[in-house]
Amino acid sequence: MADVARKAGVSQTTVSLVLNDPDSSGIPQATQDRILAAVQEVGYRPNRLARAMRLNRTETLGFVSENIATTPFATKMIRGAQDAAWEAGYLLLIFDTGAIDSPDHGERERLAVEQLLERHVDGILLASMYHRLFDPPPGLLEVPSALVDLRARDESITSVVPDEYQAAYDATSHLIEHGHTRIAHPTIDDVTAVAAKPRLDGYRTALIDAGIEPDPDYVITEPSHTAGGRLAAQRLLGLDEPPTAIFCFNDQSAMGVYQTTGRLGLRIPDELSVVGFDDQDLIAGELLPGLTTMALPHYEMGYWAVQHVLDESKPVDPVQHVLPCSLIERHSVAPPR
Amino acid sequence: MADVARKAGVSQTTVSLVLNDPDSSGIPQATQDRILAAVQEVGYRPNRLARAMRLNRTETLGFVSENIATTPFATKMIRGAQDAAWEAGYLLLIFDTGAIDSPDHGERERLAVEQLLERHVDGILLASMYHRLFDPPPGLLEVPSALVDLRARDESITSVVPDEYQAAYDATSHLIEHGHTRIAHPTIDDVTAVAAKPRLDGYRTALIDAGIEPDPDYVITEPSHTAGGRLAAQRLLGLDEPPTAIFCFNDQSAMGVYQTTGRLGLRIPDELSVVGFDDQDLIAGELLPGLTTMALPHYEMGYWAVQHVLDESKPVDPVQHVLPCSLIERHSVAPPR
Repeated sequence: MADVARKAGVSQTTVSLVLNDPDSSGIPQATQDRILAAVQEVGYRPNRLARAMRLNRTETLGFVSENIATTPFATKMIRGAQDAAWEAGYLLLIFDTGAIDSPDHGERERLAVEQLLERHVDGILLASMYHRLFDPPPGLLEVPSALVDLRARDESITSVVPDEYQAAYDATSHLIEHGHTRIAHPTIDDVTAVAAKPRLDGYRTALIDAGIEPDPDYVITEPSHTAGGRLAAQRLLGLDEPPTAIFCFNDQSAMGVYQTTGRLGLRIPDELSVVGFDDQDLIAGELLPGLTTMALPHYEMGYWAVQHVLDESKPVDPVQHVLPCSLIERHSVAPPR
Repeated sequence: MADVARKAGVSQTTVSLVLNDPDSSGIPQATQDRILAAVQEVGYRPNRLARAMRLNRTETLGFVSENIATTPFATKMIRGAQDAAWEAGYLLLIFDTGAIDSPDHGERERLAVEQLLERHVDGILLASMYHRLFDPPPGLLEVPSALVDLRARDESITSVVPDEYQAAYDATSHLIEHGHTRIAHPTIDDVTAVAAKPRLDGYRTALIDAGIEPDPDYVITEPSHTAGGRLAAQRLLGLDEPPTAIFCFNDQSAMGVYQTTGRLGLRIPDELSVVGFDDQDLIAGELLPGLTTMALPHYEMGYWAVQHVLDESKPVDPVQHVLPCSLIERHSVAPPR
């Protein structure tokens, strides 16, 4: 820093003032410019550690999430969070708590938060790979925090989640607009999946709003993976009056529906329309024909959460925020024959 | 810390010694246990920032990688890196440099390294989502560093990459062991993909070692995505003497091969055997039939790289390390008819 000061013809204190807080340093712009040019020339790298001690701010945020190896969702959330962090001059400390169904997952989550607090992060995001309710570790209350695709049972912490109801309403309406009235919705039988209920409500309400009586035979439960999708399609297409369209719980089960229709020699979309959910990379756009599906706002949720955590004028009380999903139209929907 | 000392009946200095370096503190085990119990009881949280200033070590590592939103590979590398870091009491600062084909990617990479150095990370991993050569940003030489699925053109930095040659040799041998002699290998026409050449060599050598003359008609180039796989299958299955097995460049192109065989009414594996590459989540195990493929050692590379960076007795000169790939057998390979 002495070299920078000498080159710019100012004191080290002036250099320090400009580098640490250019806006309120009160140093004339020309001098600031001279100092920044000298910084470039000398190749001076600020010591953020000393700065953190002085400002009592490390300019890092913690990002804690459960097992991220099985979905590309985490990376989109991280991208959104990182872009917002980067714009504010922050970096993310990322912590993967492993498989959510492992017995020590809660303990790993608590430890992750402790480790981040020990490192004096300025805020923590805790993210889930699917929309769920949970009891947050107490450490989260010690710094500005936000939950991503996750809500605290007691609503003690700010959260941002997708609008599952709107998404299902829009997906079903899209099929109705194409002339379908026999629309099935295979859903899941899992009490921990917060998404299932509002999606079912959105699906039913869209039908009723269009004057279509919901048919209970068209709502069945199967696991939300490819094999579950195959089973769901077998059950639905075996009905006396089979549906002409299926609104799947996710793209994985839609892939299973594709496999069953392929085996049965039925063509999508001419003989069956399909809408997925998730806009999963490597699946939705790669199936043949391309799958029309609802995209979850993963990037947007990560971005919103960081902006919220860093917002100094945010409300004192926690906020439960909802972001819309968008329909991605590909080639799996056509009018019924 | 005063409360901990009082509760344990020792001085604050003793508490500090035990918490900072229990192994060499020379404090009797019984006293150490009493101090740790007091820490638990009081809920004392060490100040890692002050500790970092004192030890000149932040116990964080930087993890820089290009656009991770389109593959689940990054998350496996991060898991491996994090597990190794966690075992050593370290956390990862993660930095996504965005799309690798964007014009400012090199600049973002350089900035990421600078940001991490400003935050005094104790080491840096720089990872790629596909095996490639590059010119590393100079900052990487300032701290212990390792490249993951990536090599420096000048070999100035330690790297760990998959053994592409062995993987292709094993995949081809697997097909030969099932009785195939007409084995095709659609590869890619991309000079930046370091994987293509050794895979082609491994494929050819496996054929030659088994006494099979490589047929140049069976090696074609198409892009390594689903649509490219469909084209490759159309070209190969249209030959006068079509192959009985296809060793694909990756699982995405294998998915395209499945789509074309489905359209042609050919059954896998009875009428065509297929081997993929990547063991991509949500694809390899979900295709019908499940795809036999080579798994890349993403977890292992991340783990190895962190262990290497933290290893105080590592060689002074950079190491170019190679890790084996493993065959994942599913249901896409059978003897030819």
